[in-house]
Amino acid sequence: MKISTSSWFLLLAITAHIQTVRVAPVPGQFPYRNNPPSAVQGYLDKRNDLFEEEHTLRFDTARIRNATTQELRATEIIEGIRRYEEASVWSADPNKEPGMSYLWAKDTIAQTDLFKQIKKMPKGGLLHAHMDAMCDASYLLKSALEYPNMHIRTTSVLNSSAPFPLPTFKPLTRDEANQYSNNTLPTSQSYVPGSWVAAHRVRDEFPNELGGPEGFDKWIINSLTISAQDSYVEYNTSAKIWEKFSSTFVVAFGLMRYEPVWKRCVDQVLVSQIEDGVSYVEMRVAFDPALSFISEDGTRNLTNSQILQVTQDAVDGVKERMKEQGRGGDFVGARVIYTATRSISYTEMVSALDDCLAQKAKYPNLVVGFDMASREDSGHQLLFFAEALLNFRAKAKKRGLDIPFIFHAGETLDDGGEVDSNLYDAFLLGTKRIGHGFSLVKHPLLMQKYKENKIAVEVCQISNELLRLTRSANTHPLPILLNYGVPVVLSSDDAGVFQNPGVSFDFYQAIVASNITNILSLGQIARQSLEYSSLDSTTKAAALENWERRWGKFIDDIVASG
Amino acid sequence: MKISTSSWFLLLAITAHIQTVRVAPVPGQFPYRNNPPSAVQGYLDKRNDLFEEEHTLRFDTARIRNATTQELRATEIIEGIRRYEEASVWSADPNKEPGMSYLWAKDTIAQTDLFKQIKKMPKGGLLHAHMDAMCDASYLLKSALEYPNMHIRTTSVLNSSAPFPLPTFKPLTRDEANQYSNNTLPTSQSYVPGSWVAAHRVRDEFPNELGGPEGFDKWIINSLTISAQDSYVEYNTSAKIWEKFSSTFVVAFGLMRYEPVWKRCVDQVLVSQIEDGVSYVEMRVAFDPALSFISEDGTRNLTNSQILQVTQDAVDGVKERMKEQGRGGDFVGARVIYTATRSISYTEMVSALDDCLAQKAKYPNLVVGFDMASREDSGHQLLFFAEALLNFRAKAKKRGLDIPFIFHAGETLDDGGEVDSNLYDAFLLGTKRIGHGFSLVKHPLLMQKYKENKIAVEVCQISNELLRLTRSANTHPLPILLNYGVPVVLSSDDAGVFQNPGVSFDFYQAIVASNITNILSLGQIARQSLEYSSLDSTTKAAALENWERRWGKFIDDIVASG
Repeated sequence: MKISTSSWFLLLAITAHIQTVRVAPVPGQFPYRNNPPSAVQGYLDKRNDLFEEEHTLRFDTARIRNATTQELRATEIIEGIRRYEEASVWSADPNKEPGMSYLWAKDTIAQTDLFKQIKKMPKGGLLHAHMDAMCDASYLLKSALEYPNMHIRTTSVLNSSAPFPLPTFKPLTRDEANQYSNNTLPTSQSYVPGSWVAAHRVRDEFPNELGGPEGFDKWIINSLTISAQDSYVEYNTSAKIWEKFSSTFVVAFGLMRYEPVWKRCVDQVLVSQIEDGVSYVEMRVAFDPALSFISEDGTRNLTNSQILQVTQDAVDGVKERMKEQGRGGDFVGARVIYTATRSISYTEMVSALDDCLAQKAKYPNLVVGFDMASREDSGHQLLFFAEALLNFRAKAKKRGLDIPFIFHAGETLDDGGEVDSNLYDAFLLGTKRIGHGFSLVKHPLLMQKYKENKIAVEVCQISNELLRLTRSANTHPLPILLNYGVPVVLSSDDAGVFQNPGVSFDFYQAIVASNITNILSLGQIARQSLEYSSLDSTTKAAALENWERRWGKFIDDIVASG
Repeated sequence: MKISTSSWFLLLAITAHIQTVRVAPVPGQFPYRNNPPSAVQGYLDKRNDLFEEEHTLRFDTARIRNATTQELRATEIIEGIRRYEEASVWSADPNKEPGMSYLWAKDTIAQTDLFKQIKKMPKGGLLHAHMDAMCDASYLLKSALEYPNMHIRTTSVLNSSAPFPLPTFKPLTRDEANQYSNNTLPTSQSYVPGSWVAAHRVRDEFPNELGGPEGFDKWIINSLTISAQDSYVEYNTSAKIWEKFSSTFVVAFGLMRYEPVWKRCVDQVLVSQIEDGVSYVEMRVAFDPALSFISEDGTRNLTNSQILQVTQDAVDGVKERMKEQGRGGDFVGARVIYTATRSISYTEMVSALDDCLAQKAKYPNLVVGFDMASREDSGHQLLFFAEALLNFRAKAKKRGLDIPFIFHAGETLDDGGEVDSNLYDAFLLGTKRIGHGFSLVKHPLLMQKYKENKIAVEVCQISNELLRLTRSANTHPLPILLNYGVPVVLSSDDAGVFQNPGVSFDFYQAIVASNITNILSLGQIARQSLEYSSLDSTTKAAALENWERRWGKFIDDIVASG
């Protein structure tokens, strides 16, 4: 066999060693004999060349080629854990397999040693996440209930004989609260559908036959999240699961777009990310005239500038606390991607784009990009807004504002149709990164263009699975992007709704779904999330330096424990 | 907008027209205004260039560029039908979507006009199908039951309180049949597990509480097929569904590997393919010392040569009948790909390879390739047999035998591991085509190599879905192969087990899962199945000429009916 000292072969050797254990070797027979005849030797040489030629295209080639002995030792240890658990945890139970549907796998994942190692890994930046859907559902509900002016209403009476209706929340003024204080509860037969009742009252007096206060919590949390039953069984089409998914936002908006709750949620989200090893967050915040964002006293709607100020204050609060704890380096900060709704009219989009420029001018360090969200399959496509988007670019340039597009694109099963064409427009409009890019792998030319132009793809495997673009992580196109060397970052998208806090679950699913992706690959993905972030060059350099320091410690700890 | 007379733009225009209907246009706003400003015009020009540059990589570019006016008219008509049914059939019901899980969609598909048109299309060759699993399950059972020496046994008594056990069939000798004629039935409490009983007796006397004779049929057919419940609900992992899948073969072997039943099945399979527009079949026939193939009188096992002779006779019978009906041109014939089992030992594989050469020498026109089948994830990989396979190539060359490899490869969710590596070995060993190639899209270099070296991929979408490599046709990687221009043929794999007779269902799922794949694309795929077949050049030329003639008529009929 061709002798090579490159790290690839060390890794291939490790893998090969483990593989020979999986398929029982037959002594004395090829490929296990020591001196194959020359024809076979020639074949093996060609095979190695082909392997190596293909592997050099991958995104992690340089990182693996330049790996330290310590990193290779850590990789071997982690591969050992992963192979052991592949057999003992996943393959031992016929109902399980590595990379299987997330909500069925979650509890098992959380108990694995591989997951515990990944939890400790420094993850870099979380670059694709929607603030309205990121907060832990229990925390969100608990926080909102502490405010006596948080009210609830339903369109029908709750009873045990039918599925509960969708709750709507709204913080009211003190006057309104007083006025409604005697309203009948939605759990009473005499409830007037659509009438507001204080949320804490409904919870406190939730009847035992409906589960008592815990039954109330269950109802609301089910309304804020997608369950395995929802995604894998009941809502078996993309259209249906999007209906359910959209309804979780309707519930969250009322609870969360309330000044004090928002602040607490931003805090909870950032702290939970930091605990998961994330040091920087770019959150998409939805700005839409149809969405209210209510002041603490319930009397008025906050302006977009005020929403940004409240957000900045919450971020600063976390930053301050981290510094006080001597962990200032572990949290670089958080930025906002201004996000419009793609289903609004052309005129409304023009206003949103102008407002984005105004906010960028006012909060130059906070607002770092423009995007449009909601379901690509049913909203307007980028081409529809192309003239406005080109004008935005021209205006930004004229005003000296550095505000790139960071578009959602390719979050669809479409191939070659209007929705899928967002990938062309995102590229031509100069997008900095793309959100999802699920259908990018269907585009041979765009794959090259995105790679050459260093446009990173914000991959959200768990999100794509729960929204029915794919069955599970092991059928997701992520490995295609990685093998072609298209830059990738991993994100949770809507951690509150999908129950994938931090990014460790996404990282876990990525590694177990591929035999070539190892812990160094995950490290490179984490590093890329800082490289492809919107941080200014000085802050980015410091963040990368800090990441490398933490990464070194992470590797040392693995080796020390192995 | 840049003016171009190329057919691409006509097609794009057709698509664009239909798309504007889907997203309500806003009058006077871009992109619907007539005279966009020059910046926007420049943008649109660049966009068209990018589209066209990418589309030229597709497999059907030449066919579409050179399309006749009649073909473009037919395409427009078919696109109209497809878009109409997309809205009226698929999107109108929230439980449905185009390209959804096959067994849930099948009845709906069969009623669409698009399917009825596809049925009429000349399909070329069926290149990937396993004879043991191709026959319609009802026909197989009915045929086998006509032979009084066909016996059945079970490992336990059948009763309504437990799932029925798996049946095993075997044709016995007259003496054995007489000896067992008084054996108690498996539906009786006094049945001795494992004892043989005449199959027709068990059916005739199947108790009413178990559904009578129809209950018997249901039991056997369920044992021969995979149901929606099996694939989508109960067997949710790849390992589990393969257990169920393998069990269907155990049942089929006993019924089918019996001289007269085999002949009838080959006949049924070929006739049903011809009725579906297929004019040529390459069937994989499993040769394995562990599998018996019993003579008409039940007394002996047929040799491999005899199995091939029986098969040739059945093929000749169909050919003769077709000629008598004046339809000689509609059926070119059928060939056999000699298929070993990949889980056998190295020594057994050497024997199989030698036997394949011997059979090729004896039946040079019938035996056209060598392959190994059964689950890639659990069998030996090509590398394990590499020395034997290289020796086979050398021996074949020495003996002047033209017997290429046509390997299964990449039928796995693996990425970069040992199983997935079959794609490298298949290529390096000079495979003519590959079976499945599901994981090929993860290989940037191999995608190029397969394209450049014209190695066609035998894609079996419905098979991959039912065996849990993908959720449905609309999440299958087929569009990636097509967009990259890797040559593809579509096949049913195991039509008896998967209930996808002919190839029309596979063609239907392929077109509705992509907005860029149209009827001309399907035509090109059909044509490729003859181009990449194992037919000798003269026969291939005649088959292609015949296909073009039928294709012309198919197009004319569409235009005439439109």
